[in-house]
Amino acid sequence: MRYNKITDEIVAGLKNIVGPSNVVLDPEKLGVYAGDEVPEAEWKHLPEVVVKPENAEQVAEVIKLANREMIPVTPRGAGTGLAAGAVPMLGGIVLSLEKMNRILEIDKENLFMVVEPGVTTGEVQQRAQEEGYFYAGDPCSADSSFIGGNVATNAGGNKAVKYGTTSRHIYGMEVVTPTGEITTLGGKCVKSSTGYDLVHLLVGSEGTLGIVTKVYLKLLPRPLHNAVLLVPFADMQTAIDIVPKIMTNGGIIPTSIEFMDNLCIKSAEGYLNRTLPYGDAGAYIIIEVEAYTESQLEADFETIGNICLENGGLEVFVGDNKSSQEKIWKARRYLAEALRVTSPVYCMEDIVVPVSNIPRVLAEISQIAEKYSVKIPCFGHAGDGNIHACLLKGNMDDAAWYAVKEKVLDEMYTVTHTHGGKLSGEHGIGAKRKKFMARFTDPVQLKMIKAIKKALDPNLILNPDKVIDVD
Amino acid sequence: MRYNKITDEIVAGLKNIVGPSNVVLDPEKLGVYAGDEVPEAEWKHLPEVVVKPENAEQVAEVIKLANREMIPVTPRGAGTGLAAGAVPMLGGIVLSLEKMNRILEIDKENLFMVVEPGVTTGEVQQRAQEEGYFYAGDPCSADSSFIGGNVATNAGGNKAVKYGTTSRHIYGMEVVTPTGEITTLGGKCVKSSTGYDLVHLLVGSEGTLGIVTKVYLKLLPRPLHNAVLLVPFADMQTAIDIVPKIMTNGGIIPTSIEFMDNLCIKSAEGYLNRTLPYGDAGAYIIIEVEAYTESQLEADFETIGNICLENGGLEVFVGDNKSSQEKIWKARRYLAEALRVTSPVYCMEDIVVPVSNIPRVLAEISQIAEKYSVKIPCFGHAGDGNIHACLLKGNMDDAAWYAVKEKVLDEMYTVTHTHGGKLSGEHGIGAKRKKFMARFTDPVQLKMIKAIKKALDPNLILNPDKVIDVD
Repeated sequence: MRYNKITDEIVAGLKNIVGPSNVVLDPEKLGVYAGDEVPEAEWKHLPEVVVKPENAEQVAEVIKLANREMIPVTPRGAGTGLAAGAVPMLGGIVLSLEKMNRILEIDKENLFMVVEPGVTTGEVQQRAQEEGYFYAGDPCSADSSFIGGNVATNAGGNKAVKYGTTSRHIYGMEVVTPTGEITTLGGKCVKSSTGYDLVHLLVGSEGTLGIVTKVYLKLLPRPLHNAVLLVPFADMQTAIDIVPKIMTNGGIIPTSIEFMDNLCIKSAEGYLNRTLPYGDAGAYIIIEVEAYTESQLEADFETIGNICLENGGLEVFVGDNKSSQEKIWKARRYLAEALRVTSPVYCMEDIVVPVSNIPRVLAEISQIAEKYSVKIPCFGHAGDGNIHACLLKGNMDDAAWYAVKEKVLDEMYTVTHTHGGKLSGEHGIGAKRKKFMARFTDPVQLKMIKAIKKALDPNLILNPDKVIDVD
Repeated sequence: MRYNKITDEIVAGLKNIVGPSNVVLDPEKLGVYAGDEVPEAEWKHLPEVVVKPENAEQVAEVIKLANREMIPVTPRGAGTGLAAGAVPMLGGIVLSLEKMNRILEIDKENLFMVVEPGVTTGEVQQRAQEEGYFYAGDPCSADSSFIGGNVATNAGGNKAVKYGTTSRHIYGMEVVTPTGEITTLGGKCVKSSTGYDLVHLLVGSEGTLGIVTKVYLKLLPRPLHNAVLLVPFADMQTAIDIVPKIMTNGGIIPTSIEFMDNLCIKSAEGYLNRTLPYGDAGAYIIIEVEAYTESQLEADFETIGNICLENGGLEVFVGDNKSSQEKIWKARRYLAEALRVTSPVYCMEDIVVPVSNIPRVLAEISQIAEKYSVKIPCFGHAGDGNIHACLLKGNMDDAAWYAVKEKVLDEMYTVTHTHGGKLSGEHGIGAKRKKFMARFTDPVQLKMIKAIKKALDPNLILNPDKVIDVD
């Protein structure tokens, strides 16, 4: 066994570093840190101890101690992950960043916000808006997720079509390395060709290559106007075909292009307890456009509306004020909850494929569902090919569920891979998807990932048992 | 000595891999591959042999042979680099990608172009336009530079303010690793959280971590209208202060925001042999805006024009047609040539600082110039803090030039570092700036870079003596 167990001496050492009140040993309180939002029991594991450092120096000291004593360290943000990335699968220390939750600076000359990792994404968005700016990162979990977790998973969300994923908003970070050294990568320069791009190697590395203790976020001009369009289509192929047409014929990159299949529309109807327009449609497309001027906004949503109607859109519902927009977004936003009501246990996947392959992949997923007599509602981000396929347990017993889940995932991933897709678009690999990594990354890449991990974390201290098996 | 010399046997092996006609040994022809566009003799070095592989398999075989025989390999694009990154400082093999120059695919459903590394950036732009799309990468060397070189240096250029540097346009690549294996990183998925972001680790790694043999470039909707504004300002501080105002008060991210100091204005006047308006101004700002509709374009350039006039702009000259735009851009575009006429030998630097620090850094560079009685005209990309400071040799003798250059660069870099800047914004480190890297990357980061290099290139075969000293 590579790792050691926590001893009283180690606990004393940790208390010495972060202070006794920032060390959690109470088994009841430890339970909170045993899992993330993956609902299944196999992705829960109790830490031996939780520490809550208050600054980078404390994080570094904890990591140094862990290296000396060979204790695994699992960094944790808000615990809103969907891949068991913050679950301490091997026990050891959970290092929670909840106390590092300050907004440190708003730089109005260079349009940067500098924050600690424990600030919620929603607070970043809110503060940017109050100051007259815009932070474009917007995962669906924004209200609760920490910005540090967004960095760790390279979180996407509804606005990635136009603004890119979290990676694009990050220009610098202070980081504690896996060996416990503190360094600042990048900063407020908006470009740099000065050595390797370590910033973007760290983004999306799921806490396996370093612990981010400060983040430099780019701010943008705030779009002042927005509109939301809901467009039902008879079938998914016609719906998805609209995506390149909006960009090419319309010359517009919308902020969001979301889709829901009919199973999702029906779930939303059930959850909201009302009928939705064209509730029997094969697909809903929800498009959001933002602009700095009202005239530009109107021009954009008229162009998009016309393209939709000329290409199979059954009708275009426009939300041009808060309440009509909220009504449209509700169907999409509460989908995860709506599905949870249908089936409290489910397996939410996060595959991503080239946009044009969405219909093919959805058709094949639908065949898999039929073959195994299960329901797999699908929704997600049409503009960037990201499909949340949600296998529902329904009233299956546990044994049947595990057996069928294994087979369905296996076939679903085969389909994804065949159509040029990847295992995760925005949720990450974590512990949950680790065993499928070899299928999506050829041996050469796996070797590269392992080599980099070993080079930067020779003792394999940081978030072990995640992303790939190194040994 | 780590490396071996090329033998007849090795030459035979190379001929066997790429064919005899793709192996260059003729000393006269080798001279072409001894340098890039850095003009000084110290950054020229003859290769022992040049090979011109025609596909990834041949590249891989050459690299394997080089690993077996311990021969350094320097990958080379068009040789338009400005950091001696493609110069075979240790001799050995220059691997020229000039024969891998095909556009392989235009994917109109997913908006991607797939190309080989030896296609010029200009050809990519041209082909994209012919097909109704837009490739946003636009280094000033676009006509001649290869896309592979753009990837290697993470090239910037005039349009990076709005569209980002080359990194943002690259979603995938086929690459030959330093040990001679072929793999495809990323692809046509526009997002992915599936393991480490190796694509963007490779971008900007200057051929030290792999040889790119195929690139997946993102295409965008083509902006149909553009306008160029030339705005003279009394001084640099007032000029640069305009940048955040345009973005925040105007809500506009222009395509370009360029600046020239008065020395550059005067050089341009001399070169173009005409007086320029407000030729005694402290600074010119050139702003380009692009839009999909004419009305949006007009709204944007009026907003920007007004912001400039309200904030110290002496006048706003608008280029709204090809010929008036060309007239404005000419002053900026021929600047490198204009300076070369003033002084055939010069040292062009590429520092980058947070935008708000441009005036301070320029003022201090001007003091350095005064101290050493030299001329250092400065121009560059105001929108992203990238300053091309161009130390002119003038009529100094060689000994004086080397002595003064050493001191000026040293002080200039100190100023840059003090103001939160980096050594290179878009040209890269190459051999030329290697010795300054330690000043801009703390020991922790240097260790990380070295560890990654050694992990991926254990024999240190690929482009040695560049970026950092590994041993």
